[in-house]
Amino acid sequence: MLKPRLLAPGPVEVPPAVLESMARPVVHHRSGPFKELFVRVRARLAEVAMVPGEEVLVVTGSGTAGFEAALLASVPAGGRVLSLHAGKFGERWASMARRFGLDVVELDAPWGRAIEPSRVRDALRRHPEVDAVTTTHSETSTGVLHDVEGIASAVREAAPDALLLVDAVTSLAAAELRPGAWGLDAVISGSQKGLMVPPGLAFAYLSERAWARSDALAAAGRLLPSYYLDLRGERARQAQGQTATTPAVSLVAGLDVALGMLLQEGNEAVWARRARLNEAVLAAGEAVGLARYAERPSPAVAALRTPDGVDAPAVVASMASAGIRVGSGQDAAKPHLLRPSVLGYADRFDALTLAAAMEDALREAGRDVPFGAGPAAALRSLAA
Amino acid sequence: MLKPRLLAPGPVEVPPAVLESMARPVVHHRSGPFKELFVRVRARLAEVAMVPGEEVLVVTGSGTAGFEAALLASVPAGGRVLSLHAGKFGERWASMARRFGLDVVELDAPWGRAIEPSRVRDALRRHPEVDAVTTTHSETSTGVLHDVEGIASAVREAAPDALLLVDAVTSLAAAELRPGAWGLDAVISGSQKGLMVPPGLAFAYLSERAWARSDALAAAGRLLPSYYLDLRGERARQAQGQTATTPAVSLVAGLDVALGMLLQEGNEAVWARRARLNEAVLAAGEAVGLARYAERPSPAVAALRTPDGVDAPAVVASMASAGIRVGSGQDAAKPHLLRPSVLGYADRFDALTLAAAMEDALREAGRDVPFGAGPAAALRSLAA
Repeated sequence: MLKPRLLAPGPVEVPPAVLESMARPVVHHRSGPFKELFVRVRARLAEVAMVPGEEVLVVTGSGTAGFEAALLASVPAGGRVLSLHAGKFGERWASMARRFGLDVVELDAPWGRAIEPSRVRDALRRHPEVDAVTTTHSETSTGVLHDVEGIASAVREAAPDALLLVDAVTSLAAAELRPGAWGLDAVISGSQKGLMVPPGLAFAYLSERAWARSDALAAAGRLLPSYYLDLRGERARQAQGQTATTPAVSLVAGLDVALGMLLQEGNEAVWARRARLNEAVLAAGEAVGLARYAERPSPAVAALRTPDGVDAPAVVASMASAGIRVGSGQDAAKPHLLRPSVLGYADRFDALTLAAAMEDALREAGRDVPFGAGPAAALRSLAA
Repeated sequence: MLKPRLLAPGPVEVPPAVLESMARPVVHHRSGPFKELFVRVRARLAEVAMVPGEEVLVVTGSGTAGFEAALLASVPAGGRVLSLHAGKFGERWASMARRFGLDVVELDAPWGRAIEPSRVRDALRRHPEVDAVTTTHSETSTGVLHDVEGIASAVREAAPDALLLVDAVTSLAAAELRPGAWGLDAVISGSQKGLMVPPGLAFAYLSERAWARSDALAAAGRLLPSYYLDLRGERARQAQGQTATTPAVSLVAGLDVALGMLLQEGNEAVWARRARLNEAVLAAGEAVGLARYAERPSPAVAALRTPDGVDAPAVVASMASAGIRVGSGQDAAKPHLLRPSVLGYADRFDALTLAAAMEDALREAGRDVPFGAGPAAALRSLAA
């Protein structure tokens, strides 16, 4: 018997109650019961995103769809973007902006490192005419958590008119995130990460400042065209409890249940749980011979580097053969990185499972690991 | 007790086996098991779409997302589109094309009427320099089925270089549709209609001719930019059993089950069943005092007009109070149109239910309808 466990940084294990709610009969998206569900879901989503009472828009699509929608709604055609990238997703937003003909100034850091707010400040002093800055909060490919609060201050200081667009795909409901207090202009996320729902929904929050910019650009005819991903049209419809096109209603039903669970636990408690569990996985990884990869670890993913002579894909495959699906390294990091994660429906025993599975896999790769080293380190970390 | 029944032209009632499959634990989209599922689903989808062995691409989004992806992949920036519209969805494709700066020539017909191939031929003779023609196959807002085979011949004859892009959102797995034999260049559909899956997935088939056009336009740098809806990128990834971004894996799992059911019944049998059931609903509607609205009825939806003095929204609401959710009229047709549908997981007894529910509602609206007139007409029609 093989018991599959999904312990990757998204998609994640989904609570049975969420799965059950998705198996209920479909509700028509123009009916009263859907409207009631959708209004409640958007209110709960705003609470989880720490913008209670504000608008968080729901898009049927991946996180990439959400980011594209926010970019097209807030940056003028031919505008200039400062693109922070220190991993695959930061690179994706730079590449997307270039695809749409924007003038992209890049500020990068090696994979595993964070981009410091002071570097953002310096870059903006060299390029003050930037319309927007794009960054990841939790860079899922490297396990780094960016200091978006510090980055937001740097942007306000050096380029007060620039908007800050934040990819919070793996940080929402995982790391501390305060869009209002920190002054973030756009926050984008997806269903299949900290929110513990299957993939298929993206979320976009825009600040009042970003909406005002969007309105001004639209009035001047300066926005790039969009139709399916037109957040401005969605905003008008969603304020009425509707969507412009048919949404993935089953996923919305699942989201309602998942948000209820998260709000019952409380945002701060969720952040603390995820940080504690992720730290335990990192500690276990170190105890079995892996090395921490991220200089500023995101609670969403435990990026761990294999020692010389140990092939990361072999470790990932060995864990998979025991039913444990973790993230592998992406692009150039593939040969030496694995990315286990307790981002989903996960507790201390899942962290312990990861600890033991990594220990088994490293031993199988020929490393001399004392029995129980991984779990012992995880339990010690959890008790601290 | 109120037993809800979803008998609208999408979303539709989903088979329990499909719902069950969606409630299973999430499979990682970069895993072997997902790849195996996705390859099988795409093969089955091509069979249902009558293009066996060819590529049908899966997009996470609504049918509108699928249409936008096909348009952006095949029509040059600033190109000219002949947009056929005789209902809300035809209008949507014209409006989308205009939004992207295309030069849109419109050919319309009143709601409830079909656009004849001969009119398309004449329009193209006046505008032979058209890059693409857009049309609905089944126009969901009016219940009209366009003769896309005839339209395709007209396009080939009058504007041999123009591509024909077909919205088959409600016609796939409902009406006869033969993209290869008829020479359709793009066929777009969605999950929540004839395929009997909840909303959230769109499908796009492009002919070899359309892909060749797309390749040539891309090489010349003449395509409009797209990122999330970039079908060219998706084509490369989906050929490897992957998607460019995280897909709605639970809906893909449900789709697999639904396609299996449809293929077991057989495409021709599915078309015949839907036509027979829809005709029974139309006959029942007439028997209780409603009038057929569509001159060339689509099997996907039974568009029925209320008699003078009977308000259609009141009829729709009256049916809803008995648990029967049908489509209401859209836009200007709202006051006098209702759109029941047996497009989903529906058999003769669902047609009978609709017949009785319409009869009840018309009687409630003060019409003198003999008891059993609706069901009798439906059963007579089904026996013919």
